[in-house]
Amino acid sequence: MSNKQHATTVYIGATDMVRIVQRKGLGRCIAELAARIERDFLRWHDFDLSARVACHSPHGVIELMPIGDARHFAFKYVNGHPENTRSGLPTVMAFGVLADVATGLPLVLSELTLVTAIRTAAMSAVAACRLARPDSRVMALIGNGAQSEFQAIAMRDLVGIRELRLFDVDPAASAKLAANLAGHGLTLTICNSTAEAVRGADIVTTLTADKNLATIITPAMIEPGMHINAVGGDCPGKTELHRGVLEAAAVFVEFEPQTRVEGDIQQMSADFAVTEFWHVLAGNQPGRRSADQVTVFDSVGFALEDYSALCFVSDAATELGIGNRIELVLQPADPKNLFGLLGSAALASLTSAAAPSQPASAPALQTVD
Amino acid sequence: MSNKQHATTVYIGATDMVRIVQRKGLGRCIAELAARIERDFLRWHDFDLSARVACHSPHGVIELMPIGDARHFAFKYVNGHPENTRSGLPTVMAFGVLADVATGLPLVLSELTLVTAIRTAAMSAVAACRLARPDSRVMALIGNGAQSEFQAIAMRDLVGIRELRLFDVDPAASAKLAANLAGHGLTLTICNSTAEAVRGADIVTTLTADKNLATIITPAMIEPGMHINAVGGDCPGKTELHRGVLEAAAVFVEFEPQTRVEGDIQQMSADFAVTEFWHVLAGNQPGRRSADQVTVFDSVGFALEDYSALCFVSDAATELGIGNRIELVLQPADPKNLFGLLGSAALASLTSAAAPSQPASAPALQTVD
Repeated sequence: MSNKQHATTVYIGATDMVRIVQRKGLGRCIAELAARIERDFLRWHDFDLSARVACHSPHGVIELMPIGDARHFAFKYVNGHPENTRSGLPTVMAFGVLADVATGLPLVLSELTLVTAIRTAAMSAVAACRLARPDSRVMALIGNGAQSEFQAIAMRDLVGIRELRLFDVDPAASAKLAANLAGHGLTLTICNSTAEAVRGADIVTTLTADKNLATIITPAMIEPGMHINAVGGDCPGKTELHRGVLEAAAVFVEFEPQTRVEGDIQQMSADFAVTEFWHVLAGNQPGRRSADQVTVFDSVGFALEDYSALCFVSDAATELGIGNRIELVLQPADPKNLFGLLGSAALASLTSAAAPSQPASAPALQTVD
Repeated sequence: MSNKQHATTVYIGATDMVRIVQRKGLGRCIAELAARIERDFLRWHDFDLSARVACHSPHGVIELMPIGDARHFAFKYVNGHPENTRSGLPTVMAFGVLADVATGLPLVLSELTLVTAIRTAAMSAVAACRLARPDSRVMALIGNGAQSEFQAIAMRDLVGIRELRLFDVDPAASAKLAANLAGHGLTLTICNSTAEAVRGADIVTTLTADKNLATIITPAMIEPGMHINAVGGDCPGKTELHRGVLEAAAVFVEFEPQTRVEGDIQQMSADFAVTEFWHVLAGNQPGRRSADQVTVFDSVGFALEDYSALCFVSDAATELGIGNRIELVLQPADPKNLFGLLGSAALASLTSAAAPSQPASAPALQTVD
């Protein structure tokens, strides 16, 4: 093969990604990514938007989330397998690619599991800044799994949350969350039920993983002025809110066509009114209208957030000098001569294969494996 | 970060991929992949099938091609940028991933540019075995770019083609093809026009790259009994056959919903009759009905062929001991404790960020970049 490498791809693996977050600091990563998400959501019409492609199986889902603007195409691969932790694997694993629209060249290939947690938390905080009451200080956090600390830190830094009320069906999860966040400026209370955690909260974040139509939050738990940040209900058959909660609230979504299928609003009729959140950022639509209004951000995770995340990772890797160049796609010395790079070794066998006595019809296909 | 690696991904880069083809030999790669494609097309209903997702721009297209069965999820990233060769980049570049449906873990990440050429040629040959006359010996090859040699070898080995008649608007492309295939058991004639190349051919393969509604093949060129293997027309606005050619032929496609949008049949009304080729393999529908019939394989490239290709690459890499394990996705020591793996470095900044005097409202987002 030719050594001429016109262009290679920057690869940021899991260890590199952890180093990026460690060196920048988690708080700065969340804040920078939140700012990027805001900027990119304000460019809504620059993007070729589509709902993600999902492949469902009995144990989980694998999704591809593509998006592009005039300069960059991005996609994320992400799974959701709630039973994975039983065998030592994370529930969610992700990686993604940022590519050059002008040539199709993949520019960056990056691990995105950690970044998915960071961007989801950043998106929740961006939404809460517009949809929660400005004096929000207490958040209930229902579901204390792998992404929960990131939500807590984002809401603390960007929204002003100072007190967390935790609940998880697995007490060990709440204990882990409390231990991880001890000493980081948040008052933490582990509660015995969702209802207890939610009581008196300004913001309620639901972040449960079970792939079921669940009703974690019921109308009886809702208090005037609450903001509900519903993160865990994110695929068909997976919800967290009772429909009565949605009926009583102003509901905001990322990208309506995707959320209608995946979000908590999958329970509602197709004409149930929702507002795409970018309209709020752009000033086209109001966010919260009064201190008493109940608001819901029906978050499912949208490709645009991963576009922002991949751009963030790309810039951070360049800034810190982290990542390696790999030959993810072939660069033949002569781009019109793919065959030529195979050389004599691959082609030696071609002549013998062309012996005139060779049978040449469909059955030839059956003889190989 | 923890050193505990539950599971890693096998990475097969460009150099590895060339080594695999060199060590197995191109002829064997084509034959094995053709056999796999046949087997996988016969399992049609085992797969979750969808049309690929395409992101179009003025210079080209970037596509994601997902597919899954009960065991494996596969996707390919592939671009098509006809102007790339002017700047030294290939027109088509591709890579893909094979993942475990049960856990969502990516098992293999592989370069697929070379394999795309091989699988496209293998698919063409599988179709020609059923759709071309069994006594086909002469093939016209219109468009002599990077994938053309692969088509020639596949048709030689699996269909019995012994004579090639070449035409390309760029004479250098035909000269390259002729030089590459000299001494490999094929009689080669470079022609001065498409019409001259097509005259008397048993099979006509069109493999042009321009992103235009073109009419490379017109009804006047068609002779009774010809099989037309139309490979180059593969996205909206990109065709190679005059509609009169399609009207006069029995037309076979890979996956009808995708080909209606991307194939040469995009010119025809939605009720224009086509046959999905897997029905021919399965014996549900006839292929060629008579020696005089004109047949068209309106090939666009379908995700199932890339599924077959990724399984082939995975097995070949294992067989030859080629490829490296990478941390494409994060494997924390405790899968429920993503936050915990960041360690004190990333979290040190968290405490200062939580200073009570920090403003906590929407404008905080504006101050960072």
